[in-house]
Amino acid sequence: MKRYRTIHYGLGPIGQELARLAASRDSIEIVGAVDIDPAKVGHDLGEVIGLGRELGIKVRNDADALFDETAADVVVHTTGSYLKQVWKQLEGIINAGLNVVSTCEELSYPAAQFPDLAQQINEMARANGVTVLATGVNPGFVMDTLALVLSGVSQQVTAVHVERNQNASSRRLPLQAKIGSGKTVDEFNQLVNAGKVRHVGLQESVYMVAAGLGWELDNYEETTEPVIADHQIHTDYFDVAPGFVCGVDQFGRGYINGEAKIVLHLRMYLDADPAHDKIVLDGPTRLELIIPGGLQGDRATTAIAVNAVPRVAEHAPGLVTMKDLPIISAGR
Amino acid sequence: MKRYRTIHYGLGPIGQELARLAASRDSIEIVGAVDIDPAKVGHDLGEVIGLGRELGIKVRNDADALFDETAADVVVHTTGSYLKQVWKQLEGIINAGLNVVSTCEELSYPAAQFPDLAQQINEMARANGVTVLATGVNPGFVMDTLALVLSGVSQQVTAVHVERNQNASSRRLPLQAKIGSGKTVDEFNQLVNAGKVRHVGLQESVYMVAAGLGWELDNYEETTEPVIADHQIHTDYFDVAPGFVCGVDQFGRGYINGEAKIVLHLRMYLDADPAHDKIVLDGPTRLELIIPGGLQGDRATTAIAVNAVPRVAEHAPGLVTMKDLPIISAGR
Repeated sequence: MKRYRTIHYGLGPIGQELARLAASRDSIEIVGAVDIDPAKVGHDLGEVIGLGRELGIKVRNDADALFDETAADVVVHTTGSYLKQVWKQLEGIINAGLNVVSTCEELSYPAAQFPDLAQQINEMARANGVTVLATGVNPGFVMDTLALVLSGVSQQVTAVHVERNQNASSRRLPLQAKIGSGKTVDEFNQLVNAGKVRHVGLQESVYMVAAGLGWELDNYEETTEPVIADHQIHTDYFDVAPGFVCGVDQFGRGYINGEAKIVLHLRMYLDADPAHDKIVLDGPTRLELIIPGGLQGDRATTAIAVNAVPRVAEHAPGLVTMKDLPIISAGR
Repeated sequence: MKRYRTIHYGLGPIGQELARLAASRDSIEIVGAVDIDPAKVGHDLGEVIGLGRELGIKVRNDADALFDETAADVVVHTTGSYLKQVWKQLEGIINAGLNVVSTCEELSYPAAQFPDLAQQINEMARANGVTVLATGVNPGFVMDTLALVLSGVSQQVTAVHVERNQNASSRRLPLQAKIGSGKTVDEFNQLVNAGKVRHVGLQESVYMVAAGLGWELDNYEETTEPVIADHQIHTDYFDVAPGFVCGVDQFGRGYINGEAKIVLHLRMYLDADPAHDKIVLDGPTRLELIIPGGLQGDRATTAIAVNAVPRVAEHAPGLVTMKDLPIISAGR
C-alpha cells in the first residue's frame, strides 16, 4: 500500500484528533508537526496528542525550516477559520512545494469572499506543482458536497434547503464557547456584532452549491440568533441556566432575483433535540436525505481531512474545492 | 453556456424519458437517435418520445452511418443490462470517436465480472480519445457512489450495509414484469434459475464499494427470493392476488475472510411499504443515511445519466466509473 507522508500544522483539539487518526492509518506516515504553543513545542507528538506512545517526532515552531528539512507529501493544516489570518502560513507551505489539506473554513470555497486571493492561491499552487484543498464536515461536506451529490439524481433542482441541528454538548470546549454557551442574550448579541460568535463557512457552502448547480447568485445574507436554554444544561465545560444562551441559530441564504434559492440553516446548541442533518432539493421531484443524529462535527471533520490526503496528493496541481475532486472515501 | 451534442441510442422507456429530459436542458442539443424498433425508425424523435413537438431528428437504425455523418459529443446508450449483449454497440460508438454515457448495469463496474473486457474497453477508449461511463440509480448511485461519499466522513469503516426498498408500483412495465409480478412461486423460481428474474448490478455495486474502500474481496454471493403479495395489488399493468409473487428480494454480499463486509439488500416489489433507501456504515462511529420514500428508479437513472453528460465530455479519456469522477450535480 502506498504511504503518504504528512506534516501536521496546528495541534489544537481538531489537529490533535486528526493526528491521532492519521497515526492509526497504514496509508499515512507522520513525518512532522508544528505548533506555536510553548507547552507543546519540543515534546514528542505522540505525547502531545495523547496517543499513549511516542512517535519519534518533536513538535516544532519553525515551520519553514521543518519544510526545508523534511521530505513530505501533504501538510495537514488546522490553525484557523479565517483565510486572511492563515494566508501567510499557507504561502509558506505552498512555496515549500507541499500539498495542503486544510480545515480553514474560508479556504473551502475562497471564491465566495476573496475571488482575487483564490486566483492568487491557484496560480501559486500551480507554479509550485502542489494541490490545495480545504475541507471539513461543514463547510466541506454536509451542507455543500452532499447536497451536490444528491442533486446528481435530480432531473431539475429549483431550490436547496439544508438543515443541520448539531448537538454541541458532545463537542470540544472551543466550539461550546464559540456558540455563546452561558451568555446572556445581550452579551451574545454584542459578541455577534463584534464578529466573535459565528460559525464560519455558511457563505462558502452557499457559493459552492451555487457553482455546482451552475447558478449565479446576486446576493448573500446571513443572520445569527441565539438559542435560549429552556432547561438547566450541564456539559463537561459549561453549566447553563434556563433563559441563558445555549447555542447559535444561523441562516445563510443565497438569492437569485430576490428569491432565496439556497437556504442553509445551522443550529449548534447544547442538548440539541432532535439532532440531525437534512437535505431537501425542491423540484418537480422533491428529494430528501436525512442523517439521523447528524454527523458529529469533530469526528467527521478529522475523518474527511485524513481521507482527503491521498486524493490531494494524487490530484493535478492547483486550488481545488470539494466539488472538483473525485469521491473522497474512507481510507485505511 | 456550453452545449453538449447528444445521440440517443435506445428508445425504450428509459431511453425515451432520458431523451425528454435532455430535450428540456439548455446545456444539451440532441443531434441524433437510434433504435431498432420498426415502429420508431423513420419517425421524428419528438413524436417517438411523446414530447408534443417535433425535434427535426429522424430515428434511424443504422448507428454506424449516423455516427459517421453527425458531429456529436456524447452517445447516451440505453439498450441493455448485459455487457456482452451490448458490447458490439459500444465498440461502434468508441471507434467512431464518441464519448459514452450508458445505463448498461454491467458496464457500471465491469471489472467485477469481466476484468479482461474492462481493460480492453479502457484501452480502446484511450486509443480513440473518448470517455466511457455507465451510471444509473442502482448500480451507479444509491448502493455504491452514495455509500462511498458517506464513507468520506467516517474515521473507519468496518462493514457496509445498504437497503433499498423500492416501490415497483410506480415503475415502468418492463420493470414490473422483470421482478416476476403475478407469477406463482414455482414460476418465479424457474425464471430465477433461467436468469430471467434478476435485478442486474448488485455485483457491480459490491465491487465498486470494495474498490473505493481499498478492500479486496475473496468471494461474492447473490441470492434471489420472491416477495409474496399479502393483499390484492393493482397497478397500471398487473393485478396480483394474495399468495402470488409481487416482487423480488435480492441480496448481494461481498466477503473478506468469510465475513460479509458489504451487504446490499434490494427489495423491489409492488406496493412496497416502507419504501426507502438506507445506508449504514459500521465502525467505531456508526453512520446512517436515509432517503425517505427512496429514489424513484426511472427518474433518478435518467437524471444522473443526463447530468453525467458534461462530466464525461470533459473528462480525460478511458473507461471510468462513478468512483473516479468528480461530483455529478444537477445540470440545467
